[in-house]
Amino acid sequence: MTISANIIGASGYTGGDLLRILVTHPEVEVKAATSERFAGEPVKKIHPNLRSFVDYNFVSVKEIKEADVVFLCVPHGMAAPYVEQYMDSGTKIVDLSADFRLHNPADYPKWYGHEHPKPELLKKFVYGLPELHREQIKKSNYVACPGCLSTTSILSLAPLAKEKLLDPNGIVIDAKIGSSGGGAAFDISTHHPERVGVVRSYKPTGHRHTGEIEQELGELQGAKFGVAFSPHAVELVRGILATCHVRLNKQVKEVDIWKIYRSFYKDSPFVRIVKEKEGHYRYPEPKLLAGTNFFDVGFELDSHVNRLVVMGAIDNLVKGSGGQAVQNMNLMFGLDEKTGMWRPGLHPI
Amino acid sequence: MTISANIIGASGYTGGDLLRILVTHPEVEVKAATSERFAGEPVKKIHPNLRSFVDYNFVSVKEIKEADVVFLCVPHGMAAPYVEQYMDSGTKIVDLSADFRLHNPADYPKWYGHEHPKPELLKKFVYGLPELHREQIKKSNYVACPGCLSTTSILSLAPLAKEKLLDPNGIVIDAKIGSSGGGAAFDISTHHPERVGVVRSYKPTGHRHTGEIEQELGELQGAKFGVAFSPHAVELVRGILATCHVRLNKQVKEVDIWKIYRSFYKDSPFVRIVKEKEGHYRYPEPKLLAGTNFFDVGFELDSHVNRLVVMGAIDNLVKGSGGQAVQNMNLMFGLDEKTGMWRPGLHPI
Amino acid sequence: MTISANIIGASGYTGGDLLRILVTHPEVEVKAATSERFAGEPVKKIHPNLRSFVDYNFVSVKEIKEADVVFLCVPHGMAAPYVEQYMDSGTKIVDLSADFRLHNPADYPKWYGHEHPKPELLKKFVYGLPELHREQIKKSNYVACPGCLSTTSILSLAPLAKEKLLDPNGIVIDAKIGSSGGGAAFDISTHHPERVGVVRSYKPTGHRHTGEIEQELGELQGAKFGVAFSPHAVELVRGILATCHVRLNKQVKEVDIWKIYRSFYKDSPFVRIVKEKEGHYRYPEPKLLAGTNFFDVGFELDSHVNRLVVMGAIDNLVKGSGGQAVQNMNLMFGLDEKTGMWRPGLHPI
Amino acid sequence: MTISANIIGASGYTGGDLLRILVTHPEVEVKAATSERFAGEPVKKIHPNLRSFVDYNFVSVKEIKEADVVFLCVPHGMAAPYVEQYMDSGTKIVDLSADFRLHNPADYPKWYGHEHPKPELLKKFVYGLPELHREQIKKSNYVACPGCLSTTSILSLAPLAKEKLLDPNGIVIDAKIGSSGGGAAFDISTHHPERVGVVRSYKPTGHRHTGEIEQELGELQGAKFGVAFSPHAVELVRGILATCHVRLNKQVKEVDIWKIYRSFYKDSPFVRIVKEKEGHYRYPEPKLLAGTNFFDVGFELDSHVNRLVVMGAIDNLVKGSGGQAVQNMNLMFGLDEKTGMWRPGLHPI
Repeated sequence: MTISANIIGASGYTGGDLLRILVTHPEVEVKAATSERFAGEPVKKIHPNLRSFVDYNFVSVKEIKEADVVFLCVPHGMAAPYVEQYMDSGTKIVDLSADFRLHNPADYPKWYGHEHPKPELLKKFVYGLPELHREQIKKSNYVACPGCLSTTSILSLAPLAKEKLLDPNGIVIDAKIGSSGGGAAFDISTHHPERVGVVRSYKPTGHRHTGEIEQELGELQGAKFGVAFSPHAVELVRGILATCHVRLNKQVKEVDIWKIYRSFYKDSPFVRIVKEKEGHYRYPEPKLLAGTNFFDVGFELDSHVNRLVVMGAIDNLVKGSGGQAVQNMNLMFGLDEKTGMWRPGLHPI
Repeated sequence: MTISANIIGASGYTGGDLLRILVTHPEVEVKAATSERFAGEPVKKIHPNLRSFVDYNFVSVKEIKEADVVFLCVPHGMAAPYVEQYMDSGTKIVDLSADFRLHNPADYPKWYGHEHPKPELLKKFVYGLPELHREQIKKSNYVACPGCLSTTSILSLAPLAKEKLLDPNGIVIDAKIGSSGGGAAFDISTHHPERVGVVRSYKPTGHRHTGEIEQELGELQGAKFGVAFSPHAVELVRGILATCHVRLNKQVKEVDIWKIYRSFYKDSPFVRIVKEKEGHYRYPEPKLLAGTNFFDVGFELDSHVNRLVVMGAIDNLVKGSGGQAVQNMNLMFGLDEKTGMWRPGLHPI
Repeated sequence: MTISANIIGASGYTGGDLLRILVTHPEVEVKAATSERFAGEPVKKIHPNLRSFVDYNFVSVKEIKEADVVFLCVPHGMAAPYVEQYMDSGTKIVDLSADFRLHNPADYPKWYGHEHPKPELLKKFVYGLPELHREQIKKSNYVACPGCLSTTSILSLAPLAKEKLLDPNGIVIDAKIGSSGGGAAFDISTHHPERVGVVRSYKPTGHRHTGEIEQELGELQGAKFGVAFSPHAVELVRGILATCHVRLNKQVKEVDIWKIYRSFYKDSPFVRIVKEKEGHYRYPEPKLLAGTNFFDVGFELDSHVNRLVVMGAIDNLVKGSGGQAVQNMNLMFGLDEKTGMWRPGLHPI
Repeated sequence: MTISANIIGASGYTGGDLLRILVTHPEVEVKAATSERFAGEPVKKIHPNLRSFVDYNFVSVKEIKEADVVFLCVPHGMAAPYVEQYMDSGTKIVDLSADFRLHNPADYPKWYGHEHPKPELLKKFVYGLPELHREQIKKSNYVACPGCLSTTSILSLAPLAKEKLLDPNGIVIDAKIGSSGGGAAFDISTHHPERVGVVRSYKPTGHRHTGEIEQELGELQGAKFGVAFSPHAVELVRGILATCHVRLNKQVKEVDIWKIYRSFYKDSPFVRIVKEKEGHYRYPEPKLLAGTNFFDVGFELDSHVNRLVVMGAIDNLVKGSGGQAVQNMNLMFGLDEKTGMWRPGLHPI
């Protein structure tokens, strides 16, 4: 099988990392990488890591031809027109924007500050988190990839939600994310002397990804969640650590938590439970995941207060973006979900 | 006035930064800096930043003579014998170890795993957080400086505790700390290729500083607290950010929070409320505090869930250690607490 | 004595660090900090480290009144009009731009690509490197502060040039500089994910500071120099290390080098010779100098090839910019050159 | 073909990165990874990136059985006994230590301070730089992999040496290397608060890799070289940039340099000439190479002085160590040298 693929909006970090994965994917041929800003310029000028792998130029989206699958890496709010256009053509769509993640149209004004332009299309999309919706994704032509912070948070807590163990009002998620999470757009806040070494609470309340987290955990547990979510910018390029401080509905033992996580993720090759008795890597550590599609999760029960601490880690540009998109594509085309991505990360890094 | 000072255990990061402050303090003369390991070697060999400022060598503690004040920078558990010895001599004692921070002897087995060797001495020490205990410190000869994570956490929430606003079981403190917090002792976990770029939950439950936090907030509010505290190692040398996710006992408005913090800290020159409408430094940012004794605090009310997010930041080696020790010493000797430390931090850094 | 000072162009990193030093300088009162872009906005909004130290706003240069000294922190090429204006008024001028550093008008087209707008003014300025021109600076009203890379390079080699030991065509200077050297202006090359961790040869040939280096070494040795100069951007905010690989005109011993450096810098309090037998800080290390006005220098003779390696280090924003400006000002007003800056750096940092 | 491989000394960074490459190499099966210190412990405990890829434990070297190839990742000076032992058995040997790199026994006392224990074996080894000795490596059973700094320096200048263009006494190589270059052994100099942010000249003269550089360039040009080599530790984990400041024997144009490099490296897939007119990645940048086996090289002629600046970059743990070892192994077994390593690096990183 060779799957032909178009990438719409390939000059940013999301599109770039997707391209990095696809150029060595054994079953994919990239037909076009679009950028309105850089049309006509070599892809490797913007993504210098692709020297020797990509010799073509960016093209305008107006010039592309049909492909088996299209990846939408456009800014939030700009995916809907493309979706309408490609739906007609039979092309499978993997949307990496936020535009089709939330099922309830009312959640768009709430979290994004505007009405959804095509609410009737929302129900056509599967929420592209394979560990939760693998079977649906396999059967779907339209997948909306989750946000990076949402991916980490949801996967950290999904097994507990499935068991209805979470107190829906006792969830604090304190996330830490590297600078690539903000994308390739720059301003004074991303200027190196300003950004380096920060431990910055940049959006302590009201972060948009909260909506996705509440949707998915709510569906799993069958309850309405009110999640206290706060992300922080830290000194790192790729990586997220989500520290989830949660109250449980009933007393559980450590061995039960182990069982719940092992059982929930038993068919998920990219999920690893990381919880060891000793060693400095005894819990998940995002830097070890750079360039990989893994989600690592660990936990610790707090006997002092009624709390479980769950720590989840990913590379935001891979499992939180391009890698998850490829994982979804693999499933949509009947491939092993690991295809093209089964490689260890770097250590040291 | 010239205050003569001895520093016991001056070769570590705590002692070193204390020395850095004292060598340009206008009212202090350092008589001896001790180190059993490096006795006879130049201080500047271990603290190369002190070249041109310090020409003497480390000496053994056995060789030192009396001074007006002694700073104990010894490892936790080793301060008691020194305290007994110096109490007799009339020397004022500023202890930077953990040995005299907790008032209740029962808290030592609980948080430190061993009985306190001299429980009868605990009540002789004031908890050396000037913003809470300024008047007591002025009158005391024995001060126990708080831990760095405790300092940040307590100062972040003290104004709310004073107003009895905190739900004692609704406090999650997610702290982030730089590598100097672990001191000068090294192992594989602090080896640069392993430690750099980490976002590491190294002690998700059961951290010792929890005891201090509960003690001080409990005293202020007159209640028993169960604090959920989790520190993380991040890529930074100096600095702590404590993100405190707290539930309040009653509904308050943002303007009330402003008033409460302003009022509580109106006589505390080293406390700054940092909360601006825009700009990338609109909340506290630890890197801006490197080398200074400031505690910066900001907050945000979360209308989505019942939560106040309070963010506090310090330099763990200054306000969390040597600087706070000097601030205490200044008060104990009747000096302005700012003496020797009234300087801005660096930007950029 | 209280010296009144105006800072023209105070919103960049150069002006900001100058301001940081002046706000605690015991003999200076800042009258105005100008910024055309931020006029009317609080200084502390742009320089958040100055909270609690500066409560005034930036003003337009059009609004300022006369002062005893004016610091010009304007972009290169824009100082000449201010110089003409202030010369008439009797104000002393410390220019931090490149506009009056080179004595020979022909050097401007060569290194800066344009004719000098006021070549007749060049000879009125002293090259503001106190370690070379201290007596002239004391008597001068107009001082042109050297570039940061020039400062490091010239001070590294000046003692050898004085002794006529340098082979004028055998000098390779390989410099490494932190990101603050590029100033507060940002673009994609300074975007954190792109800039972090770089070891980047950004101007391997033709760097403008070469002209200053050749001028000053040439004057000292009485010869015409052709310096091979290449700067590199490295992961650091503040700091320069210049590694100077030089051939000497005659065989010398290590002890002679020691004598030459000690003698040349015997009256220069901000210069330290750093060369120890062991320890990881046995040679100059820029990070230890952050926030200080020190220049540290060390060396090693290479018996394998005919080479002396001289390593010099500074904080580019202090000894390479604002600190050197204050050092010059101190001398111009008859103060001890250390005034307001005699403080150790941080360790660890 | 499946090649069975043993790795002797697999717990360090060199062995670990070799293992990382081999676990996804399509033609290799690792039979044993030895470590005397960690025998019996899981490999993934020391190399946490190999979770899900390696389930076996380290074993003692005493327990291993014969394999088609053995990789020696032992400390310098300890490879000779293994070489003698395995030579008898017909196993191919890829030695990553320094023990068989230098052809002239007299170079060992000179650069390593001791006589070579088995000088008669030196001539049996090929210097394992495929870009220089590809055909010999294909036919050899014994290959000595170059040092990481040597690889970068030699590959940077080899095309010029081949054309006899280098002035043998006009070569200054100023190298910058990340912290992984020092290996997994730690001490105070590698303690994170001390090592982070350094720009450190740690061995300005007399570095051991100089001998390899002089040997290989000397052989190519047929001349005796005296190279001025100085490495620096910079803030980075993986990566080397070698800035080579060289005088040429005759005047050449830029276009000639292009031709010389293109021609020399036309059959070397891992070499890329990186020299663009604009963009912040217009010259080689080591961080883009992390995890890859590429060597990137660029250059600039300096018309001001008689100098060519050549910049070469690698990942010291891959092209400078484990990756080069696999490249050699591929050639020794008749495989395409790219096998198992043809993947782009990360951007951003």
